[in-house]
Amino acid sequence: MCRLLAYIGTPVNLESILCKPEHSLIVQSYKPREMLQGTVNADGYGIGWYDLKKGSEPFIYKSIIPIWNDTNLESISRYVESNNILAYIRSATSGQALDMSNAQPFKYKNLSFIHNGRVEKFKKTLYRPMRTNLTDEIYSWIGGTTDSEHIFAMILNHLTTNPDKTIEQALHVTLLELQEMAFSYDTSILANLVVSDGKRLVASRYAVKQQAPTLYWVQDDANFPNSVIIASEPLFTGNWQPCPENSIISVGEECDIELLQI
Amino acid sequence: MCRLLAYIGTPVNLESILCKPEHSLIVQSYKPREMLQGTVNADGYGIGWYDLKKGSEPFIYKSIIPIWNDTNLESISRYVESNNILAYIRSATSGQALDMSNAQPFKYKNLSFIHNGRVEKFKKTLYRPMRTNLTDEIYSWIGGTTDSEHIFAMILNHLTTNPDKTIEQALHVTLLELQEMAFSYDTSILANLVVSDGKRLVASRYAVKQQAPTLYWVQDDANFPNSVIIASEPLFTGNWQPCPENSIISVGEECDIELLQI
Amino acid sequence: MCRLLAYIGTPVNLESILCKPEHSLIVQSYKPREMLQGTVNADGYGIGWYDLKKGSEPFIYKSIIPIWNDTNLESISRYVESNNILAYIRSATSGQALDMSNAQPFKYKNLSFIHNGRVEKFKKTLYRPMRTNLTDEIYSWIGGTTDSEHIFAMILNHLTTNPDKTIEQALHVTLLELQEMAFSYDTSILANLVVSDGKRLVASRYAVKQQAPTLYWVQDDANFPNSVIIASEPLFTGNWQPCPENSIISVGEECDIELLQI
Amino acid sequence: MCRLLAYIGTPVNLESILCKPEHSLIVQSYKPREMLQGTVNADGYGIGWYDLKKGSEPFIYKSIIPIWNDTNLESISRYVESNNILAYIRSATSGQALDMSNAQPFKYKNLSFIHNGRVEKFKKTLYRPMRTNLTDEIYSWIGGTTDSEHIFAMILNHLTTNPDKTIEQALHVTLLELQEMAFSYDTSILANLVVSDGKRLVASRYAVKQQAPTLYWVQDDANFPNSVIIASEPLFTGNWQPCPENSIISVGEECDIELLQI
Repeated sequence: MCRLLAYIGTPVNLESILCKPEHSLIVQSYKPREMLQGTVNADGYGIGWYDLKKGSEPFIYKSIIPIWNDTNLESISRYVESNNILAYIRSATSGQALDMSNAQPFKYKNLSFIHNGRVEKFKKTLYRPMRTNLTDEIYSWIGGTTDSEHIFAMILNHLTTNPDKTIEQALHVTLLELQEMAFSYDTSILANLVVSDGKRLVASRYAVKQQAPTLYWVQDDANFPNSVIIASEPLFTGNWQPCPENSIISVGEECDIELLQI
Repeated sequence: MCRLLAYIGTPVNLESILCKPEHSLIVQSYKPREMLQGTVNADGYGIGWYDLKKGSEPFIYKSIIPIWNDTNLESISRYVESNNILAYIRSATSGQALDMSNAQPFKYKNLSFIHNGRVEKFKKTLYRPMRTNLTDEIYSWIGGTTDSEHIFAMILNHLTTNPDKTIEQALHVTLLELQEMAFSYDTSILANLVVSDGKRLVASRYAVKQQAPTLYWVQDDANFPNSVIIASEPLFTGNWQPCPENSIISVGEECDIELLQI
Repeated sequence: MCRLLAYIGTPVNLESILCKPEHSLIVQSYKPREMLQGTVNADGYGIGWYDLKKGSEPFIYKSIIPIWNDTNLESISRYVESNNILAYIRSATSGQALDMSNAQPFKYKNLSFIHNGRVEKFKKTLYRPMRTNLTDEIYSWIGGTTDSEHIFAMILNHLTTNPDKTIEQALHVTLLELQEMAFSYDTSILANLVVSDGKRLVASRYAVKQQAPTLYWVQDDANFPNSVIIASEPLFTGNWQPCPENSIISVGEECDIELLQI
Repeated sequence: MCRLLAYIGTPVNLESILCKPEHSLIVQSYKPREMLQGTVNADGYGIGWYDLKKGSEPFIYKSIIPIWNDTNLESISRYVESNNILAYIRSATSGQALDMSNAQPFKYKNLSFIHNGRVEKFKKTLYRPMRTNLTDEIYSWIGGTTDSEHIFAMILNHLTTNPDKTIEQALHVTLLELQEMAFSYDTSILANLVVSDGKRLVASRYAVKQQAPTLYWVQDDANFPNSVIIASEPLFTGNWQPCPENSIISVGEECDIELLQI
């Protein structure tokens, strides 16, 4: 069912947030604690990060092998430093291909995206309807076949057709559309996700007709001052707050948090 | 631009047709002779074969690494014996992902399919129109993002909605539809392909607004009695016949050949 | 710590033994029951099988991705039929590379080999000593860097220098040598393994200075008449017998079982 | 036969040296100009770089797929900035495994290493002799099975047993030892290589009983001021100098070049 994390705040070494915590994503890949479905997250992983001095586009690194097996991770996590990071370990929906195109994070221009959850029976239910209203640009941008990428595409569709919309607004309306679609096509949806534009993080904990997966945040932890970390499971002992179900959590450049109940 | 081969006839060991010929697909992967675009075919490969005693569904083996690097090929080609074989080495369209989902042959129930060619600027031109008229079943069956799989989907759409149609007929009408679309959306198409149902091979050499890639066949070669081999490039010195441009070549269980000019 | 199985008897479809049992190796890859170390077996897998009509050499198929992710498995397991099969799912020793060269089964001429266990701190202890007495032929045959392959190399060294030795004898003396080395170099060894020559299976459950991993066999199960299956964990409910610790189990072409206490 | 490059000088973006030159390693992977053996370099690639602010150890990124297919390269080459870079595209010796463990660059503590060349019939000739005199530390450090890594191991053996030796001296004596071994064991050697410690580059163009592969350097090119680039083939039109055969080229932190004829 995937596990994710997002970091915003004082620039940190990727290693410190991704590898070193006692219940890091590496540990969660083989021994997650709060998964409602599935047992391991060994179907690849990915990282996204920003360095605005080098442009507004995120940097993305993905792999289709288990995170614990990737010999490149040591160097990448030791080298990368960022104030805005997404990371993700995958538990692929059975029957979906283990393709790089389906690995997260996804990116579009300056935006990056990770998703923990699923559209139940996606290919048989919302796959086609979710594509119907996409502009040609977003339609042809889709590179894979996951429900996750299609949720991101719906958000992008709002943002590109209404440039005045904020990410929060685009996410909000997308979740409402998904809710409606879930009822029309008789399916269920889990939509814990994070969108970043390199300056802020916008996350949701959301479900339709199921219990939402867990999502937590911690602010200004002693080891990560001036930061907010959002994660599927607490990475270490600390003052982790559960995100309310069916809410949008938005964290700005000053690590200010806003919560919106949907 | 890919290279392909298809075999029908007396059961042969896969090795004899795939690996041993002097200008085998292995050689063509790094030193093709008649490629009009691209230089190597190192973006993976795939094999499909039938054994009707074990059911009507084809057996498919695919890899995303160059054929010369796959250490499994030795055992697989030594073990497999079949009277109906497709094989394929890939030169991926730039920008398309090196995903297993995009590797050929594709299969649907008892049918398998390989394609050498491309729809020019596929994602920007025919990607969306080619999907419009698909039934939900075929639409949701599509597992990747290649032009090739979409051509197969159009053929399957005809076959599943008109169970009386022959493969030749479904292929013929698909090629005509593609031609019309190419003109409507101002693009070009190369469509050398082979469809098999385990009993016969139906191939086309076809192009719209470009020169068709090469395609040859040889019948009853001394080393392959009672057989027809179709290939992008002759595999060995022999009585290879160039397929006419814009034609459909159909080979039946008795290795009888029919040619249809489109 | 890996899980393994071996089959000898009436020819069966690979699928029936590898994929269909309720506690198959696929299930054991993410939910093993009797692992003493490690939690999952997701570091690749491999299969070996024989078809003596096609020669005495085993056929080997390996992959470095988790068995549940390999889209080729469906066709291979549906196609392959054999009376002598080895299969294996890997939990790599931490720090060892996820390389095809380190994937099992290993093969040498007509022999194939799988190993569940480890030499503790192999690289720092027995790596060099185990190579010292190898003939040049066996020394240069080694293709990877695992303790497993080196145990097989020691067995091969006995068999190639003493063509009269049986596999049982070569295995027996190898285990005794390993025991001695373990004491000399102050390390421990787990050596559950199977060697096949296509005609019989020779297995061991063996440990030095640790508890041996589990190993079971079942004979003439109702669903697999005229057969013996050896496995790390019972694949299904049945009359599974635990192999005694520190024993060699040998199964002949008539499915006759011999047990030798070491 | 592989192609390599090394950069030292003013910090540059990896992209500018690896991807943008008209005859970049990406182009050389499918269309090399001066290969004496082999046709393409599609058996993986690797990059090493230093950032002394982040420690003395090199950062290493490797892949076993062709450089043109790696979707991670865009982000990595756009993100990495360094004053000391090695890069390498592989054409594997036939019969050697396409393993991460065999991918270059290799690293040991603060040193990194790339090699274009081969020991002819390595496994049958120098494989065992090259290991004989290694200390246990270097012996057990070896992670793969290539001739390249074994040459690096010999250099490391000199450096670790004689901490006063310079890299140039260790390389020099290693090449002389290899020459002697080549005559003793009746084989030939190609040894174009680069060693870096993050502060300088030490390269050789060297062969025993064959013609050495090409190697060039360019200093203070208009697009790369205050730098030296060493490469198997000129990356762009410029004042490239062929390295003399059988020489060691050493470039210091001030981009001062020393040439030593062997």
